[in-house]
Amino acid sequence: MKPCYRDTMDPNIVLGLAKRRGFFFPSFEIYGGMAGMYDYGPLGSAMKNNIESLWRKNYVLHEGLSEIFSPIISPEEVFRASGHLAEFSDFSVQCQKCKQAFRADHLLEEVVDNPDSMSQKELGEAMVSNDIKCPSCKGELSEPVAVNLMFKTTVGPLGGRDGYMRPETAQAMFFNFHLLHRFYREKLPFGIVQLGKGFRNEISPRQGITRLREFNMMEAEVFFDPENKVWPGFAEVADLKLRLLPDGLEEQELSLKDAVSKGIIANEPLAYFMHVTKKILLAAGLDDKRLRFRQHLKTEMAHYAEDCWDCEALTGYGWLELVGVADRGCYDLQSHIDHSDAELTAFIRFPEPIEMEATVIVPNLSALGPLFKGKAGAIATRLGEMPCDGLDATMPIVLDMDGEEVTVPANCFTISQEIKKVSGKRIVPHVIEPSYGLDRIFYTVMDHNYKEDGEYVTLGLPIAIAPIKFGVFPLMTKDGLDDIASEVDKKLRQKGLLTYYDGSGTIGRRYARMDEAGTPFCITVDYESKEDDCVTIRDRDTKDQKRVKMDDLDKVAISLADSSLTFEAIG
Amino acid sequence: MKPCYRDTMDPNIVLGLAKRRGFFFPSFEIYGGMAGMYDYGPLGSAMKNNIESLWRKNYVLHEGLSEIFSPIISPEEVFRASGHLAEFSDFSVQCQKCKQAFRADHLLEEVVDNPDSMSQKELGEAMVSNDIKCPSCKGELSEPVAVNLMFKTTVGPLGGRDGYMRPETAQAMFFNFHLLHRFYREKLPFGIVQLGKGFRNEISPRQGITRLREFNMMEAEVFFDPENKVWPGFAEVADLKLRLLPDGLEEQELSLKDAVSKGIIANEPLAYFMHVTKKILLAAGLDDKRLRFRQHLKTEMAHYAEDCWDCEALTGYGWLELVGVADRGCYDLQSHIDHSDAELTAFIRFPEPIEMEATVIVPNLSALGPLFKGKAGAIATRLGEMPCDGLDATMPIVLDMDGEEVTVPANCFTISQEIKKVSGKRIVPHVIEPSYGLDRIFYTVMDHNYKEDGEYVTLGLPIAIAPIKFGVFPLMTKDGLDDIASEVDKKLRQKGLLTYYDGSGTIGRRYARMDEAGTPFCITVDYESKEDDCVTIRDRDTKDQKRVKMDDLDKVAISLADSSLTFEAIG
Repeated sequence: MKPCYRDTMDPNIVLGLAKRRGFFFPSFEIYGGMAGMYDYGPLGSAMKNNIESLWRKNYVLHEGLSEIFSPIISPEEVFRASGHLAEFSDFSVQCQKCKQAFRADHLLEEVVDNPDSMSQKELGEAMVSNDIKCPSCKGELSEPVAVNLMFKTTVGPLGGRDGYMRPETAQAMFFNFHLLHRFYREKLPFGIVQLGKGFRNEISPRQGITRLREFNMMEAEVFFDPENKVWPGFAEVADLKLRLLPDGLEEQELSLKDAVSKGIIANEPLAYFMHVTKKILLAAGLDDKRLRFRQHLKTEMAHYAEDCWDCEALTGYGWLELVGVADRGCYDLQSHIDHSDAELTAFIRFPEPIEMEATVIVPNLSALGPLFKGKAGAIATRLGEMPCDGLDATMPIVLDMDGEEVTVPANCFTISQEIKKVSGKRIVPHVIEPSYGLDRIFYTVMDHNYKEDGEYVTLGLPIAIAPIKFGVFPLMTKDGLDDIASEVDKKLRQKGLLTYYDGSGTIGRRYARMDEAGTPFCITVDYESKEDDCVTIRDRDTKDQKRVKMDDLDKVAISLADSSLTFEAIG
Repeated sequence: MKPCYRDTMDPNIVLGLAKRRGFFFPSFEIYGGMAGMYDYGPLGSAMKNNIESLWRKNYVLHEGLSEIFSPIISPEEVFRASGHLAEFSDFSVQCQKCKQAFRADHLLEEVVDNPDSMSQKELGEAMVSNDIKCPSCKGELSEPVAVNLMFKTTVGPLGGRDGYMRPETAQAMFFNFHLLHRFYREKLPFGIVQLGKGFRNEISPRQGITRLREFNMMEAEVFFDPENKVWPGFAEVADLKLRLLPDGLEEQELSLKDAVSKGIIANEPLAYFMHVTKKILLAAGLDDKRLRFRQHLKTEMAHYAEDCWDCEALTGYGWLELVGVADRGCYDLQSHIDHSDAELTAFIRFPEPIEMEATVIVPNLSALGPLFKGKAGAIATRLGEMPCDGLDATMPIVLDMDGEEVTVPANCFTISQEIKKVSGKRIVPHVIEPSYGLDRIFYTVMDHNYKEDGEYVTLGLPIAIAPIKFGVFPLMTKDGLDDIASEVDKKLRQKGLLTYYDGSGTIGRRYARMDEAGTPFCITVDYESKEDDCVTIRDRDTKDQKRVKMDDLDKVAISLADSSLTFEAIG
């Protein structure tokens, strides 16, 4: 049975407002459109930038992570290592008659429970036993087949190398680990972020901007010593609460501290970044009551993940996954190590050197010297450095000396056990990954903030997110009021505040346009302004108005914009 | 003869610094790399964001243009209309022996003048007459062939529709014109910007980040009434000068006003956006003496362009095109009108309605009524509205009435001349396009600001562009100095200022690291700080130091960062 979301927004209302006001709209409409592709218009693009700024403020400025910016097209090797070449697929069926393709699980959605977690075989059987036909023409459908969802292209215009458009921004943070680790002076923990586009060649995209073929992500990868998974700042937020839906348990509110100590959330940093996620989403204007963290079921969790939580929001499409916060262990780095020659590891220094028994190769210089002459020294050094587990003391060792193959006979060395001082060890770091779907967050911001009073629509966006911060109106476009209003407008823009100057229609109509666009405040220059050098500032949510001296306006506007001043507190 | 750039930077020095400090580095190195692809590392990504912010501040906040954000993958129709499907190509030759591909003009670069402006035939002849062989293996080369440089993919994983990765961000601003015009309440002029990736499947990419297969653009499209090409603000800057290299004339410095009045720059808005370009590049730290605007030669200008200027910078690669500012006439909009059914036009209202003689169709209701019954009224209305130039009064008219084809016999209407009141006219707007190559600007910022004093490297970046604004150091990481420094660091970050906390190595070594990263100021907490609550702030360029009260530090730092305070003026 499908759940009922009577209290949530009809998506068509959001999509209508989005198109009417230029938040977002389907792409390429003059050429018939292209499914799964949307443009952000002037208001949408500004709001998208604001969400990104809010995110960077938290992850880069507050948490101290660093950003990188990498290519979208990547060589096949990357996705062989990441697993996307083998695993990034959906099961598709095709109509034998009209040739349309469908996702097998979509056709079974109202027929069986959780079709999205069924195997290829289970889907095929369910299609047959439920007699599923083509929804367009009732034709016979093919067996489900797995189709890879990466967009493919060719790098080099004359038939060069296969390239794929990345399905996530994460991989560059893994395969560049050695360079990034060096930027952090080879210390752990540290974190990297990337914001940018991801691509998924959906079989049949639907649901507006919540399932795009070309989407926008904000991802972080935080690298830890697996034996020391701690993040500064945890203690400060340990008592704050999260709404959790753990695998196999009832929904419950738990403090970060309790959730970790009860073993519900795997570790402190994972809980910490869930807290950061909640903080960002609330600041973006989402409704706390319609947010929860759902733990991945054992069956849906990737085999390498140690723990994974989706932050979900209740929207007109139902519960929508906005953010995934996962402990991915060392899976990604290890996989890139296995697929390349790179050493994507960290050296963990012990508090003090430790004495350990170790197997060592002891070069026999009196045998090496006569045999290798001038090279004997270099060969002895190399022998002393090489790992010697599993070496047979009776067999020759083959070395690669700057490209030259050198065979060292067994009489040139001995293998023995020694006590060595060891200052640390080399490990493959563990990764915690908070991964944000920007477009879904954008959609939910509109969904949760849409308010209707009869025909009158208000989008109650927080000022940090609102595309336009201030509407600026001359009461009339004459008698110099327009010149004063233009000057006010220009000064606010010089202070970095995006405004919308509007001189046409009644003031009521202008307020209505700004309320629908989510603009928190409107400033009106009227005839009195010429006498008292004041303007009227009006609050979107209460419709209250106050008079402010033009000389103070910059300061008031900046303080309203960074939320250090509320409208009520304006003097 | 190749020009000599003895005073410019060796690109290898810039590339070395870029990789060493994480500004940018070749992508996918652990998998052998991929030509023409680079990552921006932590410093580079921050600096790239800063260049984008500077650009938005000028184009969006000051000039009032609005941003959109569109998909990269676009359907073929878009590039048929834009001309990229037919024209976006280079001439390639392939070695018959080793199969390597080369750009024909690259192989002729030191052999003939301006090979990049030669036709396919001319290139072929020059290859033969100069006996050009494969530079790798001396094998025979093929004839030059035109190869399209768009990356191609398939939308829909089961063999759907051809898609191309956009070679520029511009097209979405054209084919969405009707929606964007509506956002501006159907007034002209108005402007739209887009920042994002463009793609060019280069035959043989080289020269670091100045010729990438995946590059970053910042583009604006400003739409004008062709009979009224004016932009507010021109008068304010009319007397400022630009260094111009006009087609067929000597290099000269001219004021915007003079350049327009002498007919050297085609019109005021074009000159204005050249001025904006210069202003942005100087604010980004480029050297005025190494910048010029070069007019496109008649032979290199696109046939539709009315005038085009490249802003070029002198770098280690020679004169490099950073920005193109072009008057593209109505070419792009008209082409999308021709290739779609969309009406990408603007209605220009006359100051007062004008009486015009016009050809009109007068429906004959007494003939229409009996023939079309209930539909007669609708048909009469449609006849009255339709354009009637070139209609023959003796021939029937075929109408499309909601999909139904209706043939109206000639006796049902007359065609006559009438005096009509006309309130305005519908036009296809003209476009001025400033198009910025972000990666090349990035490269030039490093090139122009690199300073060496023996081994000591300083990157003299302006604070608006510098990735890190403040280095924060405890003199020693003990006795609580590190706690105070951490607190200072945290407070600056909360104010939105990116810092780098560094507690290791000598202070001199830490200064050197920050100077090389372009960090304008370093703040040191020392033992005195515990007594006098002051910190030392040190200027990168003069090495001068001042003491500042910790209580004032936020304010001082913010004022330094927005350039409202200079180091010299610190009290």
